[in-house]
Amino acid sequence: MFQRIARYLPILDWGRRYDRSALSSDLIAAVIVTIMLIPQSLAYAMLAGLPAEAGIYASILPIMLYAVFGTSRALAVGPVAVVSLLTASAVGQIAQQGTAGYAVAALTLAFLSGGFLLLLGLLRLGFLANFLSHPVIAGFITASGILIATSQLKHILGVEAGGHTLIEMLASLFAGLGRINPITLVIGVAATAFLFWVRKGLKPFLRRMGLPAFAADLATRAGPVIAVVATTVAVWGFGLAGRGVSIVGDVPQSLPPLTMPGLSPDLIRALLLPAILISIIGFVESISVAQTLAAKRRQRVDPNQELIGLGAANLGAAFTGGYPVTGGFARSAVNFDAGAETPAAGAFTAMGLAIAAVALTPLVYYLPDATLAATIIVAVLSLVDFSILRKTWAYSRTDFTAVAATILLTLGLGVEIGIAAGVLISVGLHLYKTSRPHMAEVGLVPGTHHFRNINRHRVETRPDLLSLRIDESLYFVNARFLEDQIQDRVTQGCAIRNVVLICSAMNEIDFSALESLEAINQRLRAMGIGFHLSEVKGPVMDRLKRSHLLTQLNGQVFLSHYDAWQALTGQDGGQAASTAAQ
Amino acid sequence: MFQRIARYLPILDWGRRYDRSALSSDLIAAVIVTIMLIPQSLAYAMLAGLPAEAGIYASILPIMLYAVFGTSRALAVGPVAVVSLLTASAVGQIAQQGTAGYAVAALTLAFLSGGFLLLLGLLRLGFLANFLSHPVIAGFITASGILIATSQLKHILGVEAGGHTLIEMLASLFAGLGRINPITLVIGVAATAFLFWVRKGLKPFLRRMGLPAFAADLATRAGPVIAVVATTVAVWGFGLAGRGVSIVGDVPQSLPPLTMPGLSPDLIRALLLPAILISIIGFVESISVAQTLAAKRRQRVDPNQELIGLGAANLGAAFTGGYPVTGGFARSAVNFDAGAETPAAGAFTAMGLAIAAVALTPLVYYLPDATLAATIIVAVLSLVDFSILRKTWAYSRTDFTAVAATILLTLGLGVEIGIAAGVLISVGLHLYKTSRPHMAEVGLVPGTHHFRNINRHRVETRPDLLSLRIDESLYFVNARFLEDQIQDRVTQGCAIRNVVLICSAMNEIDFSALESLEAINQRLRAMGIGFHLSEVKGPVMDRLKRSHLLTQLNGQVFLSHYDAWQALTGQDGGQAASTAAQ
Repeated sequence: MFQRIARYLPILDWGRRYDRSALSSDLIAAVIVTIMLIPQSLAYAMLAGLPAEAGIYASILPIMLYAVFGTSRALAVGPVAVVSLLTASAVGQIAQQGTAGYAVAALTLAFLSGGFLLLLGLLRLGFLANFLSHPVIAGFITASGILIATSQLKHILGVEAGGHTLIEMLASLFAGLGRINPITLVIGVAATAFLFWVRKGLKPFLRRMGLPAFAADLATRAGPVIAVVATTVAVWGFGLAGRGVSIVGDVPQSLPPLTMPGLSPDLIRALLLPAILISIIGFVESISVAQTLAAKRRQRVDPNQELIGLGAANLGAAFTGGYPVTGGFARSAVNFDAGAETPAAGAFTAMGLAIAAVALTPLVYYLPDATLAATIIVAVLSLVDFSILRKTWAYSRTDFTAVAATILLTLGLGVEIGIAAGVLISVGLHLYKTSRPHMAEVGLVPGTHHFRNINRHRVETRPDLLSLRIDESLYFVNARFLEDQIQDRVTQGCAIRNVVLICSAMNEIDFSALESLEAINQRLRAMGIGFHLSEVKGPVMDRLKRSHLLTQLNGQVFLSHYDAWQALTGQDGGQAASTAAQ
Repeated sequence: MFQRIARYLPILDWGRRYDRSALSSDLIAAVIVTIMLIPQSLAYAMLAGLPAEAGIYASILPIMLYAVFGTSRALAVGPVAVVSLLTASAVGQIAQQGTAGYAVAALTLAFLSGGFLLLLGLLRLGFLANFLSHPVIAGFITASGILIATSQLKHILGVEAGGHTLIEMLASLFAGLGRINPITLVIGVAATAFLFWVRKGLKPFLRRMGLPAFAADLATRAGPVIAVVATTVAVWGFGLAGRGVSIVGDVPQSLPPLTMPGLSPDLIRALLLPAILISIIGFVESISVAQTLAAKRRQRVDPNQELIGLGAANLGAAFTGGYPVTGGFARSAVNFDAGAETPAAGAFTAMGLAIAAVALTPLVYYLPDATLAATIIVAVLSLVDFSILRKTWAYSRTDFTAVAATILLTLGLGVEIGIAAGVLISVGLHLYKTSRPHMAEVGLVPGTHHFRNINRHRVETRPDLLSLRIDESLYFVNARFLEDQIQDRVTQGCAIRNVVLICSAMNEIDFSALESLEAINQRLRAMGIGFHLSEVKGPVMDRLKRSHLLTQLNGQVFLSHYDAWQALTGQDGGQAASTAAQ
């Protein structure tokens, strides 16, 4: 009984063994992550089109719920860049930014997403996430990074702009070029340059100055905080808010409020598909990072329990003023590197953020939006990686096509169409590939029992015997291809009296393929040609025995193709075949 | 040059060799088919919700165009039951039966369908039809047969009724039960019973009377004509039209008119999806029967050219007052059995029908709708075949699920949702199956070089060596499954120092799977475990050589698994592996 409960509550497992050493590791990690998360949460909320506090609220209860239900020891759950962009895109189609309807729609999105993840987890359907191929994900993340960075340029320039696709965004920015706010531009460019320098140059610099690696690392993580403090002080000190610099302004000084997602059927219908999309993309991002981190310590994560953990986290976000969350790459890596040993580190981070929400929010009143935009741009540009194009081009044109289409469609038509098209294209290309399987006519390598492709090797063949090897499972998508191919070859080669299908590469023969084999058998029989199988795998043979194919076969099933060769060339093959069939 | 034109115009091939013997065979076949087609064309037009003449018009120009462009020697193109039902379903959602809009929408459907088929043919995309698996088609045809027969009961009962799903139809019939027309019922039941008897009992009866097989067959084919003549004479003689028996009435006495399909964007948008559906289903029906007949005479059909032939036929229907057509099972079989040797038989049939359209239409004025309904019911009930459920259940639960879902959804939600769901379900189930491939841990059969599943055979294993065989190509859908499985087994078996993946069944490793293998390699390296491959196929190995996997592999690639076993158990395996990796 306890076992069954424990399966759904991993906290019962690690909680019982929690000790002072784990506590101190977790506390240190929590402090570091909290410092990093404060500006990041504000920035991602802005990216999602929500008030700054939504980002902090989305990091408190969700982290705690994940600590109870999740299986990864180091995953840090909260707002992430791609999900924030998807939220902005989905909610932006329903409500105007800044309205109450917009915030409610974001809550509803988190609610639907949480429910969907929970359902997948309870039904153990985590494998659905596999329909997103690695190249499609890589292409999507790269294109999203470009879209996100572009969407933030308006804050750097201090102009109004919008748009959901790259072209719309650029056109909108271009139209606003005449109204650039120079002070905002100076702050934005300076903050961006500083953050890039922190990321690339600060750590080596500090190491050269003699700082230990850990301290240098910590200082690097604190870079965004330094930028936030410096620009906030500058705006406050020089009164720049009065000169057109857009600032964060009032942020309520409170713990996360109790909120209700909207439950009207219209709203749910409009948000259901985006919620499913966000769930799956969030899950894929989260499980990838969780598995990578778990492997480093020879731990493991359970994908279906992860769905439950993320589902709970999103439901938590929906009822406490947040928006969809997931396990993020950056924050989890920091948590892991800072030494987090158990999900308790996440819970402590949540407490740190709760304290920040109550005590520190007045301090960000003068924080310029440009600084937050700089934080986002520097963070997402590290996600942009076009090397996937080069890698897939070298390895497989099919995968390259899927990546290229995903990138172009995401940039050109927006995130939702981009990722949906990526999935459809990769599934379609896979089916297309298996619909025209590699098929080789083989002959005997002289002096051996081996058979090889007649086009590649010097082999023995007989005009009255056609030996075909198909390097693919047979199923409905390629069943008719097989019929066509055999029909073609038989009508061309008039001397053929026996056809042998070498089945060594067939892991499956489905019912459509069975019917195609039966049709081929009947047609060949009508032409007076024998039809034989060789090297059928055990499980496939077990299944064929449950059908009528073997009893009606106008020929025989041979264990090895060499047996077939001997039987069909050692005597009058056509005669042998028709005898076998009677 | 001539070769290239001839490829698109098969008539140039058989036309040059046409002689007197072929002419007489074709003429006899044409007479028989024409007699059969007159009542059938009227009946299918009624099923499609169109005036009776549309069925005849749809059999004239389309047959001629198919004779020019098609590759099958015996295929008879025209209205068929399932496509007529699909037409009624699609057009019925846009216009009211009997209105001019309805007829125009049917023309547009034929136009779009013809254009789509032509496009597929020119782009050589005939393989798309393969996405319909045999069981899904069988289930769909069976369910359609039931829907069609049910839809005709209203004509037998003489009541008004409607509906697109089985439940709607039955409810609508039930509501009309109080208004049954008794005379119509008598005619309908008598005609149905007679036609069933003709189909089952007449031929054996005539043979016993001493008639030769050919004549008995011809008399059986003429059954519907006898029913038509008898009931028409009865209605005319007893003045039953005045007593509530619904009759065909005025049919224009003319050759097919020149018509224009509607080209408004709204109409095209509304009919595009149904047109694609009709095209694909029509093509699948047509190509199946064409291939079966061609095989009997060792001829062949070219699927892509068939698309062009059917596309031309549908365009012909669109401009001459018809509606979507395809190659039908019944009419093609009759054509073939009657001895048709070339597509000229089709052209002669078209002439026969043209004469009927000009000369015979006044004769069907008193033909009762109930007789046509009886013709349809008897024809389609021969399509209903639930044995596919039993067969697939015995062979494969996956295929059974696809059939059962297709039948239930077609009956319950209508033809369009039914077939679309069938395709999605069969693709989804295939992906699901390959997402959890069969994976066996293998050990050495003592005294041999063979390896077998440790759960099925008594084999030698070593605690420090994990040998895994995966019976499936690796691609994005199962890439993560592999990661999970290996992670699972390695975290459970603490003594494991080497993992060998046996790749003999992998016909492909796509980029996602490559990345998964790289991730597995890195994780195993982090745990100090060696990762090796064995029995990689040539084309897969060629591809892997273009990636970094082989250079980074924390182990070796072995030609045979026995080599791997010897190398990794003959000495300290862990040591060997880490040496190999350096």
